[in-house]
Amino acid sequence: MIERVFIAGTGLIGASIGLALREAGFGGAIVGTGPTEETLEIARTMGAIDSWVARAQAEAAAAQADVVVLAGPVLAIEDWMQRLAPALGERTLITDVGSTKAQIATLAAKLGYNQPGLARFLPGHPMAGKESGGAAQAEAALFRGAMWLFTPLAEASALESEWRAWVVKFGARTMDLDAARHDELVAWVSHLPQMLSTALAALLEETFAGSAEIGAIGGRALRETTRLGASPYSMWRDIAMTNAEPIAQTLLALEQRLAHIRENLRTPELKEEFRLANEFRARKS
Amino acid sequence: MIERVFIAGTGLIGASIGLALREAGFGGAIVGTGPTEETLEIARTMGAIDSWVARAQAEAAAAQADVVVLAGPVLAIEDWMQRLAPALGERTLITDVGSTKAQIATLAAKLGYNQPGLARFLPGHPMAGKESGGAAQAEAALFRGAMWLFTPLAEASALESEWRAWVVKFGARTMDLDAARHDELVAWVSHLPQMLSTALAALLEETFAGSAEIGAIGGRALRETTRLGASPYSMWRDIAMTNAEPIAQTLLALEQRLAHIRENLRTPELKEEFRLANEFRARKS
Repeated sequence: MIERVFIAGTGLIGASIGLALREAGFGGAIVGTGPTEETLEIARTMGAIDSWVARAQAEAAAAQADVVVLAGPVLAIEDWMQRLAPALGERTLITDVGSTKAQIATLAAKLGYNQPGLARFLPGHPMAGKESGGAAQAEAALFRGAMWLFTPLAEASALESEWRAWVVKFGARTMDLDAARHDELVAWVSHLPQMLSTALAALLEETFAGSAEIGAIGGRALRETTRLGASPYSMWRDIAMTNAEPIAQTLLALEQRLAHIRENLRTPELKEEFRLANEFRARKS
Repeated sequence: MIERVFIAGTGLIGASIGLALREAGFGGAIVGTGPTEETLEIARTMGAIDSWVARAQAEAAAAQADVVVLAGPVLAIEDWMQRLAPALGERTLITDVGSTKAQIATLAAKLGYNQPGLARFLPGHPMAGKESGGAAQAEAALFRGAMWLFTPLAEASALESEWRAWVVKFGARTMDLDAARHDELVAWVSHLPQMLSTALAALLEETFAGSAEIGAIGGRALRETTRLGASPYSMWRDIAMTNAEPIAQTLLALEQRLAHIRENLRTPELKEEFRLANEFRARKS
């Protein structure tokens, strides 16, 4: 029975988990920690956590919790995994919200999680976010309708089943994928769209900086395809670092596809590209 | 004084121009023509045109109009330009709504438009549209807040000034660009986003056809970057044909930018790409 949740990292996702737990009727304690007192105070004031401890006290606070949620960029999550491994016993469930899973799964095995005497570790990944992060942007409804992916590394414990039930109460759908498949699929549906939007916006910035014309004549097409260009490097650095190979494969495939279109702007081959794209969109809606 | 407007092509843009004229208080006659009786009847029933003539009667009907609007894909507009040139005298203003302008401007000069005895020709391009075309999608508000580009080829006549005033009454902003600059800029802000979205959607369709996973885990990022993939080839064929060189240049630049990101997923160079993209987006909003 989950009576105490500890959230390490109360930014957008971490604080939204606290708010979603409360809205879904969780009656236990929610304690937080994180790098800055200011963020923790925002999360507490919003009701995302009941109280917080400084990072130096994190091991003790985590040890008292039934579920520990690691939220933040992937490398920050890995730091927490290393730090908390010795402090927690097998009656604790740790779960994370990191955007990539292969490196986290490998580290979990290396640190001995899910082995006798050590905590259970369930890698997770809610596919939800906003253009700008931070506790102040958090909301209980963030996960409503979103997909929450899991990468199970061991037999499900009772705590794990209970945590999954909370996630469903947040309004999320869930799917289990192994770590390699997870990272490959999110490279396609999330990391590739991000990188292409960053590439397009960076290219336009470099080509037209200071020209008012682009801003004046660009419409919805430009706005939508460059929107993700506003995403912060601080978060994407860790994703690019920990999923470089799958991302590189999708980028190379897209480069080749664009070259194919470029070479066929005046040939009927272009029709085939539009046909495939039309089919993809018809399937989506 | 514009008392009679003839619209050749009463699809989304052509019919919307008729509706916008009426909403802006135009009290004269609006006559249409187009390839299918069904579309013309839809446009008439909506109030976009008062009446229509079959294509075979187009010359006679155009000759009675003060302003002739050519609406449709670029190659269809070029057909109308050739067909109507001998039928119209210099008291008539022809304008078009084609997505590319260099080839249209060249053809206008070749056909003798703006020369003594022939009609005035003012190339135009409202940057407005919808994912699906057709008269049934038309609305008076389509141009509200949109940019309406012009590529003047001659001194402005009184009719031209009056037509520009109607366009402003539609709620559009206007800008004049020469044909080469127009085609270069729209390649960047419109044609490149389209080809990119088509390439991504076609690639995903080919890689994952039949897999439910992509549809289930893809979120807003995927939806937005592939939305334009639904655009019809019928319209884009003419754009690709008539603006191949500028589009090819933007595609090549993007391919190189994506390769640069691919080669720097683990280096600090990635930070610079995000910084440029962030700046572009900060400028946009």
